Amino acid sequence: METLELDGRRFNVARANESDIPALAALLADDVLGCKRESTDLERYAVAFQEIDRDPNHLLVAVRDAEDNLVGTMQLTLIPGLTRNGAKRLQIEGVRLASGTRGTGLGTALFEWAHEYGHRHGATLVQLTTDKTRTDAHRFYDRLGYQATHEGYKRPL
Amino acid sequence: METLELDGRRFNVARANESDIPALAALLADDVLGCKRESTDLERYAVAFQEIDRDPNHLLVAVRDAEDNLVGTMQLTLIPGLTRNGAKRLQIEGVRLASGTRGTGLGTALFEWAHEYGHRHGATLVQLTTDKTRTDAHRFYDRLGYQATHEGYKRPL
Repeated sequence: METLELDGRRFNVARANESDIPALAALLADDVLGCKRESTDLERYAVAFQEIDRDPNHLLVAVRDAEDNLVGTMQLTLIPGLTRNGAKRLQIEGVRLASGTRGTGLGTALFEWAHEYGHRHGATLVQLTTDKTRTDAHRFYDRLGYQATHEGYKRPL
Repeated sequence: METLELDGRRFNVARANESDIPALAALLADDVLGCKRESTDLERYAVAFQEIDRDPNHLLVAVRDAEDNLVGTMQLTLIPGLTRNGAKRLQIEGVRLASGTRGTGLGTALFEWAHEYGHRHGATLVQLTTDKTRTDAHRFYDRLGYQATHEGYKRPL
């Protein structure tokens, strides 16, 4: 567990645990896109949680405020690969911050923490995809030094 | 190992093994972008190969022609996640096909095989990113039913 201190507000960053699942599911659903594709069937989230939790290459992050409310999450995955001269990638998925944290600097602090995590684990590249309609997020990633060099293609199976 | 049969040409699809590393590195470097960022330092590829190979969530694919030449590769990674109602993703990285195979239908057959692999392992979504300059690849993915709904952001660490 680590503490991020921002203008007198404190946030704890830790590995999510099973008891976080209801709050994580609620946070994922409280989003302009998430509200259409998340469900209230916690059993499916619990199955996914177990799969994430048992693989040391995944870190499902829970961010809590000083009152122990879950206010943020992201999933970090370390992906070794042959390309780019055998580069290991840190992939970030499922980023959500509670609306009440906007403007506190928590997003920036959390990403800086994630980059440090990746660096510590040997990653030389961080990557993520974000929906083309999330223009606020694009400005955020631009400010953090990300470049939108790639098209993010997806397809249902 | 599986065989893809295309207009009388046969290709074998199998898990890459350590002896494939020199040919894999050469294939990655034989590319308009790869030639700038791959190296001849096989030791780094060997380290990455071991990391990929020991995790059952990764499959580094080697495609060979009837004469046993390595003519294609892709890396498949299964990523469980909470988002989208606990969806498991199949992520595809590091796709390369030897220039001599263009027009044979191998690319389409290989992707159909990869989708079937993902489906068999419980993935409900397949995703990849491709450099915005690879316009031929974009047309290929469009034809396969992919949608470029996302921006692909990357940043060195």
